[in-house]
Amino acid sequence: MNLANIRFDEKGLVPAIVQDAQSKEVLMLAYMNEESLKKSLETGETWFYSRSRGELWHKGATSGNTQRIVEMRYDCDSDALLVLVEPAGPACHTGSYSCFSNRINGEKYEASPNRFAIINTLEEIIAK
Amino acid sequence: MNLANIRFDEKGLVPAIVQDAQSKEVLMLAYMNEESLKKSLETGETWFYSRSRGELWHKGATSGNTQRIVEMRYDCDSDALLVLVEPAGPACHTGSYSCFSNRINGEKYEASPNRFAIINTLEEIIAK
Repeated sequence: MNLANIRFDEKGLVPAIVQDAQSKEVLMLAYMNEESLKKSLETGETWFYSRSRGELWHKGATSGNTQRIVEMRYDCDSDALLVLVEPAGPACHTGSYSCFSNRINGEKYEASPNRFAIINTLEEIIAK
Repeated sequence: MNLANIRFDEKGLVPAIVQDAQSKEVLMLAYMNEESLKKSLETGETWFYSRSRGELWHKGATSGNTQRIVEMRYDCDSDALLVLVEPAGPACHTGSYSCFSNRINGEKYEASPNRFAIINTLEEIIAK
């Protein structure tokens, strides 16, 4: 891995989309600086840079809801990261599985951690 | 929809993660300003703000690879959008289905538009 490939912005940050590797739900968007990207690669867990607190942030350090990194990708412009994870618990500080729980029309959305729910539904149909 | 809920940054932008509503692959990360968000909601197709060109950008206007919006969500901090789309063609200017085609270890990754590929695999196994 050549970190020189990644283009950090003028604040030294790159947005990192966190996606559940199994369900493929998008869990959160956070930001990494070079140090947190290195820590993520070294430890195999997500580390971010908190823009509000101005410090490194090991996801789950206090809550226990760490995210094990399954794979990392970057985009065609090298200015965005996609981090596929196996989450130990909810991604959101609200306790939700995903931070993206608000539909733009005002309704709530509850993401499902179970990617293969369709298989269970198929099974039920076949059993009838 | 109350646009006042969305927190644009000091440049008037909000990051928008674009995800295929069917395959659930993350296709790209782009930025919307208030005008492009309104245009997206009005037209039902993705409009972004190009930071490099400094102008509104209707995705697919020249390539034909538009993205029909199936649903939009925002996160717990209201400073990131998740746009679920039905893409008319590749999301990436390179011709790739997804912009996130580079693994951080240097390998290429080819995302599949077919979310239900597992069903075909199951079908083949059952047929044996």
